Amino acid sequence: MRVVVPFDAERPKTRLSDVLDAEGRRSFATAMLRDVLAAVRGAGGDPAVLSTAPVGVDAPVEVDPRPLTPAVNDALDGADGPTAVVMADLALASPGAVGRLLAAEGDVVLVPGRGGGTNAFVARHPGFRVDYHGVSVRDHRRIAREAGAEVGHVDSYRLSTDVDERTDLPEVLLHGRDRSRRWLRERGFRIRVDGDDGRVRAVQGQPE
Amino acid sequence: MRVVVPFDAERPKTRLSDVLDAEGRRSFATAMLRDVLAAVRGAGGDPAVLSTAPVGVDAPVEVDPRPLTPAVNDALDGADGPTAVVMADLALASPGAVGRLLAAEGDVVLVPGRGGGTNAFVARHPGFRVDYHGVSVRDHRRIAREAGAEVGHVDSYRLSTDVDERTDLPEVLLHGRDRSRRWLRERGFRIRVDGDDGRVRAVQGQPE
Repeated sequence: MRVVVPFDAERPKTRLSDVLDAEGRRSFATAMLRDVLAAVRGAGGDPAVLSTAPVGVDAPVEVDPRPLTPAVNDALDGADGPTAVVMADLALASPGAVGRLLAAEGDVVLVPGRGGGTNAFVARHPGFRVDYHGVSVRDHRRIAREAGAEVGHVDSYRLSTDVDERTDLPEVLLHGRDRSRRWLRERGFRIRVDGDDGRVRAVQGQPE
Repeated sequence: MRVVVPFDAERPKTRLSDVLDAEGRRSFATAMLRDVLAAVRGAGGDPAVLSTAPVGVDAPVEVDPRPLTPAVNDALDGADGPTAVVMADLALASPGAVGRLLAAEGDVVLVPGRGGGTNAFVARHPGFRVDYHGVSVRDHRRIAREAGAEVGHVDSYRLSTDVDERTDLPEVLLHGRDRSRRWLRERGFRIRVDGDDGRVRAVQGQPE
């Protein structure tokens, strides 16, 4: 199946600016993108990056400088068959998890992200379009039903975990795939358990 | 399968104290416990609550006032067959998700929680014991391997989402099961999308 992976090549991961500078955010975002592409390929999918600017990865890249919603809708318009869309910041995505998505039944199969987002979906219905503004998983369910599509869901922690903020970094350090996890470790990020509340945090120390 | 559900009946969910008073936290925690028990039963499991004090729910309750780790290890000591342990604050747990856990292969099957915790597991190996302190999912993997147990994992957003803090409440409002979701809604909790950063928050307004 064709799997579109949208990527913001210009100002990715701005909510990580308290821990990474602009160059670090771009580099980390690209590491996550590469992990996602590897997971898609490992699941037998056929990845295509939909990027706001050129990016050097081992997959076809289509450049579309528009915001996420019109760019993805244009990709859906041009599709001649089932299409999956998988976000580029799913650093925990494994071939097994992506495989469950591609195999799941439904005209539209949604993977909710933490915080109301839609981290991935499969569209097998020509009437489905996206709207990533607001609580998108709720809107996508409604849009699919209004189009007469049968809606399925995939229950995956790996696909529901998008990496936006510092509080997401422990998940990458504990369960991330090759490149993203190594990227953080090589830059000295470590797990620390805070004694006073037992919470797990990502802290930066000496690089390896 | 016997499914032990540990529950802190005395001071549950202290990290929700910025949004709920002590009585509210107890009541909400009990709503979540009831949802978990319903999901376990719906999956064909045989739930048993392991509580620090008596609690009125529709399941056998064993009272053990000790901390989580020794109480659960005592339950594992006394087991004469496979035992699952599922935390009481998994407000998104569905029969389907619990069913995947109970059916998963492995001597020890772990479900990581966000933040390094262990939200649920199945133990089919007599040598497995728990240690919930710190990054428990990492420790549990090690303990299982040292006991010679083959370790499996279940990849479930519903089971990986434990409800500890205010930032977890949107997940309950969007994807929670019957009682927990209704509990929040009846007390006026709603989803709000912040205009400035697009983040989704749970805010409290007028009760329904």
